[in-house]
Amino acid sequence: MSAFMNLAEKAFSYITDNQDRFVSELTEFLSFPSISSQESHKGDVIACAKWLANHLANIGLESGLIETKGHPIVWGQAKGGSSKKLIIYGHYDVQPDDPIKLWRTEPFQPCIRDGIIYARGASDDKGPLFAHVKAVESLIKTQGELPCDILFLFEGEEESGGTSLTDYLSEHKDELSPDAILLSDTAMYDRNTPAITYGLKGLLAFEITVTTIEHDLHSGVFGGAIRNPAIFLSQIIAKCINSEGKITIPGFYDKVKDIEFWEKENIEKLKFDTNTFLEQAGTKQVWGDKDYSVLERIWTRPTLEVNGLISGYAGSGVKTIIPNSATAKMSARLVPNQDPNEILGLIKDYLNSICPDSVELSISSPFSSANPIVFDTGGPMIQKVSEALKEGFGTEPVFVRTGGSIPVVNAFWNNFRKPVILMGLGLESDGAHSPNEHFSIDHMIRGAKSSAYFITNL
Amino acid sequence: MSAFMNLAEKAFSYITDNQDRFVSELTEFLSFPSISSQESHKGDVIACAKWLANHLANIGLESGLIETKGHPIVWGQAKGGSSKKLIIYGHYDVQPDDPIKLWRTEPFQPCIRDGIIYARGASDDKGPLFAHVKAVESLIKTQGELPCDILFLFEGEEESGGTSLTDYLSEHKDELSPDAILLSDTAMYDRNTPAITYGLKGLLAFEITVTTIEHDLHSGVFGGAIRNPAIFLSQIIAKCINSEGKITIPGFYDKVKDIEFWEKENIEKLKFDTNTFLEQAGTKQVWGDKDYSVLERIWTRPTLEVNGLISGYAGSGVKTIIPNSATAKMSARLVPNQDPNEILGLIKDYLNSICPDSVELSISSPFSSANPIVFDTGGPMIQKVSEALKEGFGTEPVFVRTGGSIPVVNAFWNNFRKPVILMGLGLESDGAHSPNEHFSIDHMIRGAKSSAYFITNL
Repeated sequence: MSAFMNLAEKAFSYITDNQDRFVSELTEFLSFPSISSQESHKGDVIACAKWLANHLANIGLESGLIETKGHPIVWGQAKGGSSKKLIIYGHYDVQPDDPIKLWRTEPFQPCIRDGIIYARGASDDKGPLFAHVKAVESLIKTQGELPCDILFLFEGEEESGGTSLTDYLSEHKDELSPDAILLSDTAMYDRNTPAITYGLKGLLAFEITVTTIEHDLHSGVFGGAIRNPAIFLSQIIAKCINSEGKITIPGFYDKVKDIEFWEKENIEKLKFDTNTFLEQAGTKQVWGDKDYSVLERIWTRPTLEVNGLISGYAGSGVKTIIPNSATAKMSARLVPNQDPNEILGLIKDYLNSICPDSVELSISSPFSSANPIVFDTGGPMIQKVSEALKEGFGTEPVFVRTGGSIPVVNAFWNNFRKPVILMGLGLESDGAHSPNEHFSIDHMIRGAKSSAYFITNL
Repeated sequence: MSAFMNLAEKAFSYITDNQDRFVSELTEFLSFPSISSQESHKGDVIACAKWLANHLANIGLESGLIETKGHPIVWGQAKGGSSKKLIIYGHYDVQPDDPIKLWRTEPFQPCIRDGIIYARGASDDKGPLFAHVKAVESLIKTQGELPCDILFLFEGEEESGGTSLTDYLSEHKDELSPDAILLSDTAMYDRNTPAITYGLKGLLAFEITVTTIEHDLHSGVFGGAIRNPAIFLSQIIAKCINSEGKITIPGFYDKVKDIEFWEKENIEKLKFDTNTFLEQAGTKQVWGDKDYSVLERIWTRPTLEVNGLISGYAGSGVKTIIPNSATAKMSARLVPNQDPNEILGLIKDYLNSICPDSVELSISSPFSSANPIVFDTGGPMIQKVSEALKEGFGTEPVFVRTGGSIPVVNAFWNNFRKPVILMGLGLESDGAHSPNEHFSIDHMIRGAKSSAYFITNL
């Protein structure tokens, strides 16, 4: 056995031996109702942050709170034996607990049934965050000195859309300067298969409004001679996306990079289960561009969605008007090498080209904009995480992409251009954001081992 | 001079001589805030009804109130020298007065400026109604006996969509049995040209909802593989109406009766003023089926409008969801010989044919449904009204149709199948339903003379 394997073995034993204490500490951590979006829980968020900083100090880290306009960032750091530096990200704030009546047990009185801990925040993100804390503890306790510098940055605004952490990252870009960033805020592929998420879609959200008249008009007095903006909006949406799901805005796909051959093979190997997907989605049939498989569509193809429609009368019964305007809330999910600003430009050009002078068309500034990111899965860091997950879970991890966007990943990548590693420890079925959120204790322990192995091997 | 002309002359003199008193009585009538849609004004509606019934008694009619589930119907009747019977309809209830700050003078403190009386209800419909009351008074006072039986039926629910009067008409169909029905709740063609409205469009109002998933989904996790109902709704609306305003639902136009040659000539003679129309509509350009002139489109061609769109997120900023459903509030205006039920059937068949099994499509029962009506302008009654308007206004009236629907006209026609004569006394520009509603005293006086002439000549 190599010296390295020996070190890892010791950490693994420590984690196994201390499992019960870890669970009771996690229970304490989960008891804080650190709901960041609710003003009434501001005190709970701060109490939770203090508890976490204190916990980091207790296991031997230097730690503290960074005050922000919003909720504090908890930091904890320790020097290591090499010059390498790893930032580990997580968030200690949680979603609201409503609808409270759908919870089987109290959301902030954690409860263990069949090796699963039930509480708000168990899976998103306190449980996964805590796995990394326990990994670092195991290394400190068994090895005295960490193999590399570790900086924990745990934010309290992830569930409320705060920007304090991203602001902090750009303001302290030079001094932070990590070699890699590790986070666990994504999911495993399935109960037995850990996953590394190596691709995120970009995002462009905006709204379009068409106005044809100054105010609503009587549909009898004017109907037939005045353009109805709700109909016109429908017609232009229909000109942007066809019934097979292809986006028909000229140039929209021009910069889309084809997926690599290995990705196509990888997706085939994953044996996507359509029935489970349909069940999760609550629908009868998948839909979309038939030139691509379902996972290809979700992970690798850009989309354009209407998120909301607003026009005219929305009450019960009838109001026989021609509405004066109609609005569509829209968002596009983008893939490499699409640029959100360029795509917005294409959309504007196309809509302007199909919109007659008599219609007033307004397209908002982006509500949200993020570049797509795909990390190199061949790099040494991601390979090391892969090995570590195999050691911790006893199963080869899979590489996955997601159709979602994680702004903090963009912030880490844009500031540091170093590998950002998304190690999934929870499950899509853990009920993050839903009643009865839960997290497998086994996954926490295996996650802690994987993290310890990765840090040792860095 | 014939005996008839002599009688008319006397009535005309009476009207001219008593003009100032008529105006002061109308002022009293307009002072009641008889807003039928507001519970807080229930007492005012009843007080107004009592005042009106009392006024009818004072001029020599038998009169009273008919109690209903809603607001009372005011009736007044007098026997005449012939067996003929004329029902004169009107409504004494008014629209709400908001936005109150846009009124130059108090809505229920009538005020006269330059021969125009300003008050809520002046034009819609107390002023025109009162013209007929004063006509009957002039005949009673100058001739002792009316030339025919007169029954006034004035409802108090026109502005609040009540059905008390239409219920009353069908319940008392046999005993009512008129030879004609006269009402003034439409408009003159312009300031100098009285108009007889001989055609009303039918109406069909309903809503369609498409549902593709059980609840809103994350647009990143599911986007590209799940059908977006807001996009699908847009696509099916675009398949129902093309950009030139033609309705593309198979069979929609099949039963549309071409307009008569005289109607085409009549419309040409009316010299429709596009600029005034655009100004009223608050838009830059007319739109619609270029095979027909603007007035032809509004008066004689069926339309299909979207009155409202409801789907997904309607707040500010962005919510990146695939909405679970999307709804369009729709209404069609129909022309002879289209039948609302048949049209709804065609719409259902077409939508079902273009809607895949995976989409749940629901089409509501009609919120509102009315048959189109076009009266024969060659009949003796309508010719007599035409003569009467020429005598009263000194100008030949014109025949017009409207794109609107007037449910009470359908009720009169369906129950009695006798001419329903729509004698326009107000102007489209009188501001009915708007602040600073007004009515020309001259039009009331000329209307009273026209009405007196018509009744004398019946």
